[in-house]
Amino acid sequence: MLKHTEDYILSTEVDRWLFHADILVDKAHVVMLKEQGIIKKDAAAAILNCLTSLEERSADFIEDELPGYEDVHTAIESVVIQEIGEDVGGRMHTGRSRNDEVATCIRIALRTELFELLRAVNGLRRALLEKAREHLDTIMPGYTHLQHAQATTFAHHLLAYTDALARDFSRLIIAYEHTNVSPLGAAAFASTGFPIDRDRTASLLGFDAVLEHSMDAVSTRDFIIEAIASFSNLMINISRLAEEFILWSTSEFDFITIDADYVTGSSIMPQKRNPDYAELVRARTGTVYGCLMSGLSICKALPYSYNRDLQEVTPHLLRAVRTTTASVTVMKGMVEGLEVKLEKMEKQAPVGFTAATELADTIVRETCISFRTAHKIVSALASSLRDEDWDWDRDWDSQRIDELTLKITGTGQKLSDTATGRELNLNEKSVKEALKIASNIQKRNVKGGPAKKEVKRMMQQREKNLATDEKTRLEKEEYVKKSFDLLEREVQRKKRIVKLIKMNR
Amino acid sequence: MLKHTEDYILSTEVDRWLFHADILVDKAHVVMLKEQGIIKKDAAAAILNCLTSLEERSADFIEDELPGYEDVHTAIESVVIQEIGEDVGGRMHTGRSRNDEVATCIRIALRTELFELLRAVNGLRRALLEKAREHLDTIMPGYTHLQHAQATTFAHHLLAYTDALARDFSRLIIAYEHTNVSPLGAAAFASTGFPIDRDRTASLLGFDAVLEHSMDAVSTRDFIIEAIASFSNLMINISRLAEEFILWSTSEFDFITIDADYVTGSSIMPQKRNPDYAELVRARTGTVYGCLMSGLSICKALPYSYNRDLQEVTPHLLRAVRTTTASVTVMKGMVEGLEVKLEKMEKQAPVGFTAATELADTIVRETCISFRTAHKIVSALASSLRDEDWDWDRDWDSQRIDELTLKITGTGQKLSDTATGRELNLNEKSVKEALKIASNIQKRNVKGGPAKKEVKRMMQQREKNLATDEKTRLEKEEYVKKSFDLLEREVQRKKRIVKLIKMNR
Amino acid sequence: MLKHTEDYILSTEVDRWLFHADILVDKAHVVMLKEQGIIKKDAAAAILNCLTSLEERSADFIEDELPGYEDVHTAIESVVIQEIGEDVGGRMHTGRSRNDEVATCIRIALRTELFELLRAVNGLRRALLEKAREHLDTIMPGYTHLQHAQATTFAHHLLAYTDALARDFSRLIIAYEHTNVSPLGAAAFASTGFPIDRDRTASLLGFDAVLEHSMDAVSTRDFIIEAIASFSNLMINISRLAEEFILWSTSEFDFITIDADYVTGSSIMPQKRNPDYAELVRARTGTVYGCLMSGLSICKALPYSYNRDLQEVTPHLLRAVRTTTASVTVMKGMVEGLEVKLEKMEKQAPVGFTAATELADTIVRETCISFRTAHKIVSALASSLRDEDWDWDRDWDSQRIDELTLKITGTGQKLSDTATGRELNLNEKSVKEALKIASNIQKRNVKGGPAKKEVKRMMQQREKNLATDEKTRLEKEEYVKKSFDLLEREVQRKKRIVKLIKMNR
Amino acid sequence: MLKHTEDYILSTEVDRWLFHADILVDKAHVVMLKEQGIIKKDAAAAILNCLTSLEERSADFIEDELPGYEDVHTAIESVVIQEIGEDVGGRMHTGRSRNDEVATCIRIALRTELFELLRAVNGLRRALLEKAREHLDTIMPGYTHLQHAQATTFAHHLLAYTDALARDFSRLIIAYEHTNVSPLGAAAFASTGFPIDRDRTASLLGFDAVLEHSMDAVSTRDFIIEAIASFSNLMINISRLAEEFILWSTSEFDFITIDADYVTGSSIMPQKRNPDYAELVRARTGTVYGCLMSGLSICKALPYSYNRDLQEVTPHLLRAVRTTTASVTVMKGMVEGLEVKLEKMEKQAPVGFTAATELADTIVRETCISFRTAHKIVSALASSLRDEDWDWDRDWDSQRIDELTLKITGTGQKLSDTATGRELNLNEKSVKEALKIASNIQKRNVKGGPAKKEVKRMMQQREKNLATDEKTRLEKEEYVKKSFDLLEREVQRKKRIVKLIKMNR
Repeated sequence: MLKHTEDYILSTEVDRWLFHADILVDKAHVVMLKEQGIIKKDAAAAILNCLTSLEERSADFIEDELPGYEDVHTAIESVVIQEIGEDVGGRMHTGRSRNDEVATCIRIALRTELFELLRAVNGLRRALLEKAREHLDTIMPGYTHLQHAQATTFAHHLLAYTDALARDFSRLIIAYEHTNVSPLGAAAFASTGFPIDRDRTASLLGFDAVLEHSMDAVSTRDFIIEAIASFSNLMINISRLAEEFILWSTSEFDFITIDADYVTGSSIMPQKRNPDYAELVRARTGTVYGCLMSGLSICKALPYSYNRDLQEVTPHLLRAVRTTTASVTVMKGMVEGLEVKLEKMEKQAPVGFTAATELADTIVRETCISFRTAHKIVSALASSLRDEDWDWDRDWDSQRIDELTLKITGTGQKLSDTATGRELNLNEKSVKEALKIASNIQKRNVKGGPAKKEVKRMMQQREKNLATDEKTRLEKEEYVKKSFDLLEREVQRKKRIVKLIKMNR
Repeated sequence: MLKHTEDYILSTEVDRWLFHADILVDKAHVVMLKEQGIIKKDAAAAILNCLTSLEERSADFIEDELPGYEDVHTAIESVVIQEIGEDVGGRMHTGRSRNDEVATCIRIALRTELFELLRAVNGLRRALLEKAREHLDTIMPGYTHLQHAQATTFAHHLLAYTDALARDFSRLIIAYEHTNVSPLGAAAFASTGFPIDRDRTASLLGFDAVLEHSMDAVSTRDFIIEAIASFSNLMINISRLAEEFILWSTSEFDFITIDADYVTGSSIMPQKRNPDYAELVRARTGTVYGCLMSGLSICKALPYSYNRDLQEVTPHLLRAVRTTTASVTVMKGMVEGLEVKLEKMEKQAPVGFTAATELADTIVRETCISFRTAHKIVSALASSLRDEDWDWDRDWDSQRIDELTLKITGTGQKLSDTATGRELNLNEKSVKEALKIASNIQKRNVKGGPAKKEVKRMMQQREKNLATDEKTRLEKEEYVKKSFDLLEREVQRKKRIVKLIKMNR
Repeated sequence: MLKHTEDYILSTEVDRWLFHADILVDKAHVVMLKEQGIIKKDAAAAILNCLTSLEERSADFIEDELPGYEDVHTAIESVVIQEIGEDVGGRMHTGRSRNDEVATCIRIALRTELFELLRAVNGLRRALLEKAREHLDTIMPGYTHLQHAQATTFAHHLLAYTDALARDFSRLIIAYEHTNVSPLGAAAFASTGFPIDRDRTASLLGFDAVLEHSMDAVSTRDFIIEAIASFSNLMINISRLAEEFILWSTSEFDFITIDADYVTGSSIMPQKRNPDYAELVRARTGTVYGCLMSGLSICKALPYSYNRDLQEVTPHLLRAVRTTTASVTVMKGMVEGLEVKLEKMEKQAPVGFTAATELADTIVRETCISFRTAHKIVSALASSLRDEDWDWDRDWDSQRIDELTLKITGTGQKLSDTATGRELNLNEKSVKEALKIASNIQKRNVKGGPAKKEVKRMMQQREKNLATDEKTRLEKEEYVKKSFDLLEREVQRKKRIVKLIKMNR
Repeated sequence: MLKHTEDYILSTEVDRWLFHADILVDKAHVVMLKEQGIIKKDAAAAILNCLTSLEERSADFIEDELPGYEDVHTAIESVVIQEIGEDVGGRMHTGRSRNDEVATCIRIALRTELFELLRAVNGLRRALLEKAREHLDTIMPGYTHLQHAQATTFAHHLLAYTDALARDFSRLIIAYEHTNVSPLGAAAFASTGFPIDRDRTASLLGFDAVLEHSMDAVSTRDFIIEAIASFSNLMINISRLAEEFILWSTSEFDFITIDADYVTGSSIMPQKRNPDYAELVRARTGTVYGCLMSGLSICKALPYSYNRDLQEVTPHLLRAVRTTTASVTVMKGMVEGLEVKLEKMEKQAPVGFTAATELADTIVRETCISFRTAHKIVSALASSLRDEDWDWDRDWDSQRIDELTLKITGTGQKLSDTATGRELNLNEKSVKEALKIASNIQKRNVKGGPAKKEVKRMMQQREKNLATDEKTRLEKEEYVKKSFDLLEREVQRKKRIVKLIKMNR
């Protein structure tokens, strides 16, 4: 066979990824085969011994020997057979097939990756919460359409991301739960005539349940699609934050300085501080999308049950989860190291007349005319002042506020209802409060709003939610760890038997 | 402004879709504004009256007037103002913005679509369960790599799909829950200074909770991505069933006849019965993928908060959900009308030596040699017989089984261990049972396997699960319905006030 | 049959799109059938008469009658048969099938759309060239990583887009050529036993050639994939320009004012000028991507020849081409109406030390030290000055240039080689020229560079290229037009025969 | 800096891929710098010497040293500086930047890959042509909707793929031409003040032209999108062939045997011959789609000029091109080794009444009734016979043909016009010829049809086209080779100078 042909069927990177999972699956399967009386205790002991020693030299094995085999499952079985003979080692694959084996391995390996990702996501949430706490009073312009809209605080802005990430966490937990079920024992797709105990292997391997139907169990990759879709949603969120970091660190915005660890210089321009990491997070969002699209395209219209096409889904999962975890981790570092230029933000906050909405609302409250009319009045004010060369993009100091207040409330030129022509007779103090950005923000204290009190309340609530989510994550990790401990104990017990047998000889 | 320019900004189909949701949002918002004392009772009454009458002539309005406005929100507000004057009608938009309004409307409209989809999915699950019940004894070849692998039953095969769809249901319920939270009151992104009650509007509109953070509430479309991703996973599953229907109705497979409602003729070939519906289900899977890809691409790297880009996500959602529901419904019809050619399936079941695995397993059980060795022995048998011109693709009648049994157990030529050369001395009865497809299937009775007893158990369990899921769906629908009833009662009460006022004049 | 089932198979929007193409195909086919003696002259005349009158009432037919039929091809044939009887009208479909018919119609309809798109692309190129001509001397900062890198001119910046669009044009022309071949006569996939003349219909319909192989002709949709891929590449380019317009019109950049036709206000914030059109162009890029992804997913792994799946590709093509043409047209309008704030751009040009590279290059030229060393020297200068609180983000006036020049060349503190410690003794005039942005730009006069002379040369060249491309486009349109004229003449001739026959009776 | 942070920015696999291209670029750039007098001859000689020796130890360098650097460009420059000092080695990067350098390297590396792919595509075309030549007389059923439609020959079927692949070749050639232009000299994006000669480096590196505009040159990745889109279209075509191989090698179709090199066994089912390679080709189509989708998502809405996002496009290109070439090569092997079961194909050819269309056409020709009526008559015949339990799926031998002919032409029951009731009086000989599949096929001899004569003509034409395309490919390869020879001669000449200088010392 030609080299290219052989290579075409391999998936070496995935095989490396699955190695430890495969050893676990082999162990649990052999422990169960022994318990069910399908294989004898000395055979079980010999196989488990062999698996243990293979595990010990795993680094070398993965590096040097693995690439020579069709896949990791074949590699391990072959080595076991080589070492203890086919008559014993050849019993390991009783009552199962590579189809259920590989599906089980992918779920175990993904589970581990999901733990890392969940940890990373909570790390980023924590970093955002802490950075928000530092900036409860940092005023900044809020944007819609990237245009100045209304003023807000940097704390409020960052909290928006923690909420998005909390939903990402909840999606990932569900993806985890859909992942953590055991296809083992489905065999090729039709289960087996051997009296295996699928619940037992599921439990030894830390699964929450058995994925029951044997044909479904080997045919479905929906948990992978769901996982990558969750990563994609998460990547959207951090790509948006990355985009803001890129914008905010331009000369034009100049709101932040990104930590030196996350910028690079130029090979030609000595003065540059390029936000490469943020750009890469943004770009790798596209990489994760591609993984999803590949997975979807591959799975479409495959007849049941297993088809080799499914092998090609796994590298996309691996790339997607690794990329996502690394990106979240990088974002966490960037958030932690972020330096905020408070004055720049604050100075920009009123620019572009971001107080306009509050002014219109004030008119409604003061004069009882309708919101739509008040909106028109302020629009008319904005354009008439623009015609007078009043520059909405200029700085916004107290002198300017006084001037503007006068224009709105002062004699002779005071603001009138565009519909009726009636003068509005606004209260000077109320107008000033609407125009002063800091007090203007405090007005907006409804649920979810930027007023400091509300932001503090939200922050406390989010601290609690994060703690709850961390607990969930740790409990799941703990459950798996305990299952593995149990498996290891069973393996040791079975291995001990062979020693006892040997001693008794 | 040029026509093309105006048109470019419109999204008419979506506006139609959102009309009823927008009326509901307007009503709930006005009821709350009145309750909070932000607008007066007669203003509230006048607006609610106007909304009610607009709702009554909705079909005409949507068809004729709506397309003339920038969007549905503007259209409704404009009509209200036209009819009752700006001084009253202009109060409707107090304390909110189009940004939170549209986000709320999309969630309400999607909720309705999700109810339909959930119902359709459960309908398909029921159809599959019922078809499976008819075919508990219908033997068929099971495939891996589209090659005959082991025999199974049609009931077992169909049940695999019910399990996949049950997971789809669960994903859709979660998507529903992530959808059913209220952004209303977030206003442009920074909430408002008016003392609105976000919990009240959420509750009047049937939401489970408020989507708290005001910037997050208008900026996120993660619920849309999650929904379309769930549709994509669901479409994978039904595209696989559609593919099987297409294959099974070929001249070559000839396992099924698709109901006349779901096939078409040819403009040129008079004998054709083309599985067009199944093909379209397969193809529309790609359509849903495209919607997902569009949504993902659009949302990537958008700075906070609202950007007009988000408008472009909605038509993809609409197309995706409609396509998915229609496809599920079509599949349900196809499953219900499916006619199965039992003998064809049964005749094909043993073809290609699908008993081989069971024979190998039997050797393991009978002779205590290892599975790997037994596998080799049967492989050797298979190829040596092929060399003797024994045709594995030929029919498989009892005479053939006898012949083959003789070859395996008979004197002079009986099967031997390829490793040791030792004769295996297999029990004739066991070998025959392995070779007879019907008894062979009954052997595989572990959890999830095709043995009839296990299939019946699974079927019962799935009936129960389906009933539970239906209950969940109905409860959610009921909750929304009750909220709407409450809203309508409040609207009527507020409207009555104006009548009383009028009467008192 | 249930309504939902019937609807599922329809593709009404596409049918409308294809109506005129189908009439043309029918006419050409009938003319050829007559010429080949496959149908008689009076039958041909009757059918052609009927087609002509159907064409005349096309608007009504498309609106009212078309939706009642399975597809446009069936609709037209049915109407013809209704009007002139099956014995005559039933001959129209001789020697062809819907499979080749629809493939031909799609190619004709796409051809028309491509003409519009090609025209729009050239319109945008022209608008960019004209805007560039106005800004040959408008200095602006050039960006890498969205950081100020080196100064350039607005003309140079805009010309970059004309070059990208010129490549888009060339890709579209190739897509056109791959589209403009005729599948007609391939019939269902196996051609026909009737002695049809495929070259004749191809030529009457304006095709450049016959798409020869009958199975390939009805099975392939590669021209659609190629077209949508070209649109995607084009959308990338205009999405980048749209992104720049969005950035440049922020308060922070403030480089441009977008024409009032392409901005919108806010429902709540009276002062807003939102770049909605640019945002929609950016978003619709994602829409076109989704169309591509759908097309790819649908076409994957379809066995030959025609499958109904292919029907589902066409709406994505239609959406993609319409979206792309509209987006290009909107961008053209935006470019034409663009108002540039020259001073803002110019003032920002040196900010962030964009002269640094030119300074390093000057050091190389003046002192003969290596570029890498010069790069380090300037880097060191940049950071040491930053330490001295020299603000690279401040304005850059002649006083500052003098000051900086002194720091570089002046006694006591002059710049030295970081490696050797040797003083560099730079020429004051050269340094100043490097630091003065306007002269600095003129230095970069190699092929493709921003120096005015080179930009003018490029502009002239691009004018010529655009003229050539316009000629190509017009010739192609002309060729099709002439073919249609010929077809119409043949139709008239054939129709006249029937009149003569009638008169002779 | 944390390890994860450092790793995040690396793209090691791409760096390996670009190594040789980067050495070439360095050489050409240095030769030009020397010729333009920008660097001195001994500096040029020293750098070129150093590059040559680095090239000689490239394998080790790539394996061991490269991963330690930020990227391949930095790695090579650093090593050069290490070995010959910054004063000399530091001159290599004069007048360029990594931005133009990497763009140039990608184009060179892609060019090489495209040569391999073009060769592979032509190899597959040749294999198909040769397999087709063997099967000019192999009759098979032709399918639409995977239903038997009309009979054709295997040669005709395979030729359809050669035509699709010929278009793929033409798209790849255009992608090649859009790739093979030189961005070198664009520097960071703004070109340079050094008097470099961009045409000279372009020519030394085998480019067809300079990619002129300096900002466009470093900003665009449209050639990558175009290339991956072409790969996607190609993958569609071979995924369709792969799908047919999978179908045809099922027990049910049983038309072909795939060569042993391209099937695998099962870990559990000893009798299996799984078409894994065909399945992987099908699946990897999805992988290439994902690469395209990633590329598109990444490039959308990036402001000019270079952004780090662009780095993330390259690995997708690399994966896409490697996957495509490998897949084409695998398909070529599969086609060459394909064993066709002639009798099975032939036996299936008439099944399902594939002669129906020809029978309808015969009725038209014989009786002068319209095609639509003839179509109805044959439809009616088909269903009335079905009602008589005539099995259209049964074998189709001469006895059956005689029987059917009698039913159509015989006394008492002969076929009549469904409209008029008139008997058709068909000629027995014509009917038999329509029903006999072999003669039926020969009838369809219009351009592109399956009649043997036409297939032979097409085959000859395609042989000629393939030869022309091979010539095109070889000329392009030759042109690049000659340029590299010239470059190498110039490098040797420059290096010789330093030796002469050394000798003269």
